[in-house]
Amino acid sequence: MYQSFNPTPRTLMGPGPSDVNGRVLTAMARPTIGHLDPEFIRLMDEIKALLQTVFQTENELTIPISAPGSAGMEASFVNLVSPGDKVIVCQNGVFGGRMADNVRRLGGQVVLVEDTWGRAVDPHKLQHALQTHPDAEIVAFVHAETSTGVMSDAAELCGLVSDAGRLSIVDCVTSLVGCEVAVDDWGADVVYSGTQKCLSCAPGLSPLTMNERAIERLKSRSLPVASWFLDLNLVMGYWGEGQTRSYHHTAPVNALYGLHESLLIACEEGLAQSWARHRRNHLALCAGLEALGLEFIVPENERLPQLNAVGIPAGVNEALVRQQLLQQFNLEIGAGIGALAGKIWRVGLMGYASRAENVFLCISALEAILSQNNAAINRGVAIDAAQAIYEAAQD
Amino acid sequence: MYQSFNPTPRTLMGPGPSDVNGRVLTAMARPTIGHLDPEFIRLMDEIKALLQTVFQTENELTIPISAPGSAGMEASFVNLVSPGDKVIVCQNGVFGGRMADNVRRLGGQVVLVEDTWGRAVDPHKLQHALQTHPDAEIVAFVHAETSTGVMSDAAELCGLVSDAGRLSIVDCVTSLVGCEVAVDDWGADVVYSGTQKCLSCAPGLSPLTMNERAIERLKSRSLPVASWFLDLNLVMGYWGEGQTRSYHHTAPVNALYGLHESLLIACEEGLAQSWARHRRNHLALCAGLEALGLEFIVPENERLPQLNAVGIPAGVNEALVRQQLLQQFNLEIGAGIGALAGKIWRVGLMGYASRAENVFLCISALEAILSQNNAAINRGVAIDAAQAIYEAAQD
Repeated sequence: MYQSFNPTPRTLMGPGPSDVNGRVLTAMARPTIGHLDPEFIRLMDEIKALLQTVFQTENELTIPISAPGSAGMEASFVNLVSPGDKVIVCQNGVFGGRMADNVRRLGGQVVLVEDTWGRAVDPHKLQHALQTHPDAEIVAFVHAETSTGVMSDAAELCGLVSDAGRLSIVDCVTSLVGCEVAVDDWGADVVYSGTQKCLSCAPGLSPLTMNERAIERLKSRSLPVASWFLDLNLVMGYWGEGQTRSYHHTAPVNALYGLHESLLIACEEGLAQSWARHRRNHLALCAGLEALGLEFIVPENERLPQLNAVGIPAGVNEALVRQQLLQQFNLEIGAGIGALAGKIWRVGLMGYASRAENVFLCISALEAILSQNNAAINRGVAIDAAQAIYEAAQD
Repeated sequence: MYQSFNPTPRTLMGPGPSDVNGRVLTAMARPTIGHLDPEFIRLMDEIKALLQTVFQTENELTIPISAPGSAGMEASFVNLVSPGDKVIVCQNGVFGGRMADNVRRLGGQVVLVEDTWGRAVDPHKLQHALQTHPDAEIVAFVHAETSTGVMSDAAELCGLVSDAGRLSIVDCVTSLVGCEVAVDDWGADVVYSGTQKCLSCAPGLSPLTMNERAIERLKSRSLPVASWFLDLNLVMGYWGEGQTRSYHHTAPVNALYGLHESLLIACEEGLAQSWARHRRNHLALCAGLEALGLEFIVPENERLPQLNAVGIPAGVNEALVRQQLLQQFNLEIGAGIGALAGKIWRVGLMGYASRAENVFLCISALEAILSQNNAAINRGVAIDAAQAIYEAAQD
């Protein structure tokens, strides 16, 4: 017979899930109440308002999808794409590829605009695709590519899309709360995110926001949405206005307690303060890792502060290093995926995990383990380099 | 600014979510670890084995889908149904209707076999449909109709389906652990459930099991599965055998801690003991509610022990009664839905909520509130009637 599961506490500095604030864990353990209880409906209203704040939007349809980030991606596509629709997908990593896969599964036609993995989406290429494919009514791209650590210029890309009269779908799974996401200012039409990155909530929910233009497209579909579970026409009946909510599916009650608490924490800190904290810790981590001799795969001005992708030093068994970090320090960092599998490490500094103590733990643990593995690194200089960043920030 | 959410504790005797055992709440609050952490992979293996136990199956593909029960339903259909496929759907309540909706959205053709709401699926009608539609390769029905409180004879229905060489999809959302679910003995091909009913876990996950025959159909599809998130070809790569798991989506880590604990609790009690407990409390509740003068809408031999559907006494405002139960006693019972909206109450005795104290609370609170509303009920006899059942059970 098995025992109750008591996980060894870890420091989560991979690509997500990130460390969850104890307040969020406590919230999730509160007594379950009904998904149509008046108190729960009040909670839902607060979650919607708090999500509008962090997304910086006034979109009425701003809700958490009851499943992880990839379901938020799927909800975006399944509601807007019908068989035969042409969709421009910008791909510069794994998640752009997943978007294209979503479109194809729905019977849509993909126009792929490819960029090098580790580089931002090139606005000129998108502009060209918009001109070449005037019949492509939807454009999708990833703001923060979790597979490479790249940030693309969402404001510029969304501007091109709306100037061309198309609709944008933007993946902000890793960016939300870690760097600026300004849905209304960008003019983004559909944006989705995840809870397990910079919100530092447990994985399992996908915040999503959709403006009136996108809802109009949804409402004018001739074929029904292929997914009953993700059909936003139905989901809106439950998450809509007023005290009367029509039953759709049973909401993940306790997970939503956690999301609510994580949104409170984000709003208590303030968005600008959170972005600055992510940036400061990122710069310190960069300084430390570069002092060790590790190389970032992303040019400085395109780096995500919450996800740091570095190459593996020559001759090092990358999986063994991650295993040793976990075993000796309970520290999780991420492997590469897709085309970068085996070639990089991904070090997350997301949400609650974006703290000076984690920066120092990661740098010192990597120094120790890489030395142990006889990697050619610079010893004894990394901590000073990181500390210099914090000292400069205090001046 | 909003405050942390502290729900008023309720007694949940609706159609789900049911009361969650404190052990499950505690489990969900344990520190989040990575979805590829070796400790988490061990947890996943235990969850699979425990699910096999409660489903009474040796199916290798026995996993929790990372979203609520309706996503389990959708996973069953989206993996097996391609456009143009003919599917026989037995409908005797809301959830059979939802199954038919799933098939249509996937471009499938529905052969609807209808039965009265409040009655079991009629095997003769299914037999007739199997004969009339030899080209319908899939048959779907609901074992425990949560909208009416009816149990259908899954063993007999699955037998007809497999004798005819077709595949069965069976909804066991409300039945699992509350009454017998014997996947292998039934010869059921695909069975899904939910966590928020008799497992008494928080809502948000959907256990699913699929045998080799169904997997063969999935693997021989000519078109890709319409959903990336629910494509079991991909999900199996993460939930499969061995220490190497390929990343698909980020698993809902803390929700899975809770599921693991709820499965442990079910196995500690024993399945037969759990079914007997559900039956005993159901009989006591029946005796009490009937003594009050309330009438069950389901014939005695077709009733679910975990969900009791009774008609509303004449002249009573049913919504007001539920509101008063909630306000005065923190007791939640369920409304009718679909064709039975406004016509019945649904009283759940599911999992952890199936306890004598809840039976007595419900009977006495209903007696008080119905009296307050001047309903024509029999006073002062219901508690004795219920108690007589418990005393008889002890002899």
